[in-house]
Amino acid sequence: MKVTVFCEMSGGMEAEAVKKAYPEGMDRCLQGIFGPGTRLISQHEGEDGSALTEEILNDTDVLVWWGHVLHHAVSDEVVERAADRVRRGMGLIVLHSGHMSKIFTRLLGTTCTLKWREDGEKERLWMVAPGHPICAGLPEQFVIPHEEMYGEYFDIPTPDELIFLGWFPGGELFRAGCVFRRGHGRIFYFNAGHESFPNYRQEEVRKVLTNAAGYVCPAQPLAPPFGCPSPAALEKL
Amino acid sequence: MKVTVFCEMSGGMEAEAVKKAYPEGMDRCLQGIFGPGTRLISQHEGEDGSALTEEILNDTDVLVWWGHVLHHAVSDEVVERAADRVRRGMGLIVLHSGHMSKIFTRLLGTTCTLKWREDGEKERLWMVAPGHPICAGLPEQFVIPHEEMYGEYFDIPTPDELIFLGWFPGGELFRAGCVFRRGHGRIFYFNAGHESFPNYRQEEVRKVLTNAAGYVCPAQPLAPPFGCPSPAALEKL
Amino acid sequence: MKVTVFCEMSGGMEAEAVKKAYPEGMDRCLQGIFGPGTRLISQHEGEDGSALTEEILNDTDVLVWWGHVLHHAVSDEVVERAADRVRRGMGLIVLHSGHMSKIFTRLLGTTCTLKWREDGEKERLWMVAPGHPICAGLPEQFVIPHEEMYGEYFDIPTPDELIFLGWFPGGELFRAGCVFRRGHGRIFYFNAGHESFPNYRQEEVRKVLTNAAGYVCPAQPLAPPFGCPSPAALEKL
Amino acid sequence: MKVTVFCEMSGGMEAEAVKKAYPEGMDRCLQGIFGPGTRLISQHEGEDGSALTEEILNDTDVLVWWGHVLHHAVSDEVVERAADRVRRGMGLIVLHSGHMSKIFTRLLGTTCTLKWREDGEKERLWMVAPGHPICAGLPEQFVIPHEEMYGEYFDIPTPDELIFLGWFPGGELFRAGCVFRRGHGRIFYFNAGHESFPNYRQEEVRKVLTNAAGYVCPAQPLAPPFGCPSPAALEKL
Repeated sequence: MKVTVFCEMSGGMEAEAVKKAYPEGMDRCLQGIFGPGTRLISQHEGEDGSALTEEILNDTDVLVWWGHVLHHAVSDEVVERAADRVRRGMGLIVLHSGHMSKIFTRLLGTTCTLKWREDGEKERLWMVAPGHPICAGLPEQFVIPHEEMYGEYFDIPTPDELIFLGWFPGGELFRAGCVFRRGHGRIFYFNAGHESFPNYRQEEVRKVLTNAAGYVCPAQPLAPPFGCPSPAALEKL
Repeated sequence: MKVTVFCEMSGGMEAEAVKKAYPEGMDRCLQGIFGPGTRLISQHEGEDGSALTEEILNDTDVLVWWGHVLHHAVSDEVVERAADRVRRGMGLIVLHSGHMSKIFTRLLGTTCTLKWREDGEKERLWMVAPGHPICAGLPEQFVIPHEEMYGEYFDIPTPDELIFLGWFPGGELFRAGCVFRRGHGRIFYFNAGHESFPNYRQEEVRKVLTNAAGYVCPAQPLAPPFGCPSPAALEKL
Repeated sequence: MKVTVFCEMSGGMEAEAVKKAYPEGMDRCLQGIFGPGTRLISQHEGEDGSALTEEILNDTDVLVWWGHVLHHAVSDEVVERAADRVRRGMGLIVLHSGHMSKIFTRLLGTTCTLKWREDGEKERLWMVAPGHPICAGLPEQFVIPHEEMYGEYFDIPTPDELIFLGWFPGGELFRAGCVFRRGHGRIFYFNAGHESFPNYRQEEVRKVLTNAAGYVCPAQPLAPPFGCPSPAALEKL
Repeated sequence: MKVTVFCEMSGGMEAEAVKKAYPEGMDRCLQGIFGPGTRLISQHEGEDGSALTEEILNDTDVLVWWGHVLHHAVSDEVVERAADRVRRGMGLIVLHSGHMSKIFTRLLGTTCTLKWREDGEKERLWMVAPGHPICAGLPEQFVIPHEEMYGEYFDIPTPDELIFLGWFPGGELFRAGCVFRRGHGRIFYFNAGHESFPNYRQEEVRKVLTNAAGYVCPAQPLAPPFGCPSPAALEKL
């Protein structure tokens, strides 16, 4: 399985809390989750995402996307290129603030807005599809000690599979882990991963992500580009 | 719309807390939610539910079901009779501990088990389908001051429509309001209504239930009994 | 219920077959289906759809969309304006070649491509959700004598509700009637309505469309614009 | 992966057409699809299915079920035993006339009735979820030269995943390949396999079934029996 991690590294990643959580860079921590061959594309200020080339997409089974303040900077061309790959079978994992990334809203068709609050409180994640491959090896619930609160209403289409719900002490809850199918491809959204907390070091979070990569990894070769063919009848008319 | 309320009135309904919450009987309170023509069938100890006759089902658009310790006493014949009606179009609303009723598990095919705790704490209900007719006129979230905790994993099939999620202070959450389609009929499950608290007097709960009755009310006459016909071909072979 | 019909009237609508099927114009025939107060916006060559103003959308419960060769001419601004309304609750009915309209692909997130063939053959439509309000008063199957073949694979997300399947004599079949939820709004796609055949005069087709308008009509006032608020905690932290 | 095939071998299996299609017995042909270690339980007249013991279920990842005229003879105890395993994670593949088996209707909650006709005509199967693992290595459509017609309305709950649609020359169509989730387990229904035709020898059918076995095979150990525990609060109340 060939994984490519696309991770925004805006100036905000230089904040003390982030450096403390991820001295090596959050992008490198994410890369490390998916094994030694994983490719990393870090998007810095002023970059439009074009480092995610056609060649790299051609060589990617699963694309992992983390972004936040630089969503707008990713060019529409890059977004369409990647979205086209998803529809033709490439797996996509969208993380945390990636809910507002162009690729996610483009593929889902909704605003993907939600409520949020940075209060340093915990999140408790509950399985609602316990037999699902993404849940393999995980307990029925686990706590992320500090996570940004993401709350409903989360403006997404009905997920094809709802896997996790998140509970927050402030009274909110969230559809925290969701699978969507678009064309030949599968998308997994997972809310965990605010940059100020070292949540991508947490064992359960890493397990969710490696399970998810296995789940969205295509079972078949990339499909040809879509079109509207006009074939002859298969039966005699 | 013709509504029939089936409500267990076991000895437990004589407990002080219940009498205080519902001096007139919880069965009569439920009946009152759905308007003056609503029929009430109260199931007492030693009764097998056969008061829910074929004639009454013939005259029912929406059946509302509350039961708990007397589930087992309802005869299989009554359950099949009612389930058959649901499949042929009758609406069904299953409340609170009705999650373990024979009719609910029969129609859903799963165990419908869950976690529970009577701790007198609140439940906070969040909409996750805010445009849905069942949500009409309701705020995005509301609190039931005291409710039995019902928590995941709730062993139900994927709901056709997930409407409400419930948040509990003890760290649990729950798919609290769900629509299922079975045959021509629609089923709405809603968790609120522990007998020790006057929750069926709460305005928001009543609104959910009257909205739900409108939603599951059949749009068409009762379908004929199901069978496996062997019709002639429609096209020339 | 306030219905607005948006119907492309390209030069192709001047073809003899179309004029014969719809001497009054297909746009006017569509308008006539939804009752006397229905507003009509006809898009001619060179027009960008801006006649579908904010004011008109403010006064619309259900938007009906038929387009084909002029999809590209509809400005992105109009598309976003209308899509925003759908997400905030307005109903949308997309017809026939509208499957490639910008508004449909924008809201669905997929390519919405399909197979097609103009062979003047029939379509046989089968209900697969017979109790659904959109099926009210309709037979379990009915034939449209002449319809353009639309065949799978139809590149749509999993429908929230699959209502009709279409059978074609050439060996193809199609998810012909589908409901999607996006935000607060509901979308119904229905394949019938190639301009060369008077299919919008057929009683069953009209019944499907009036039922669908009732179904996607919002149950609540238009929701406010979406955003990502950061509210205070509801529970004491 | 440990597969157990449960296959009815009623007196009807002695008919000339069946013997011609499956000289070795259809049960043995089915067994052969899933590899050398596959266990076979053949149900003959007068047998109640109790050969499907607890021990065998304990040693089964995927249960394959073909039955027809002996459905009623399978004891309720066996059905509950097997259904319990599915809910706890065992995969289940239900074939052809197994749509009316007790285990299928018990897990689905509907009547699972359908239309049928033995006319020796073809079925054309179309993918509607082309990227799905069950579709791996298969063409977008393929023909089974002779198959019993199974037509809508097929009284099943909304499938969790709709994989194949079947087209029949007589004008019918059918949701031919469907995935359902029940508890921790996955169920795949597939319509192919009328005993009078050697359809389980066809390469595409075998590929569907081996793909499906891989898909419904549990990703985790068998879950413990379900119950309704009443745990202490996880958060301080």
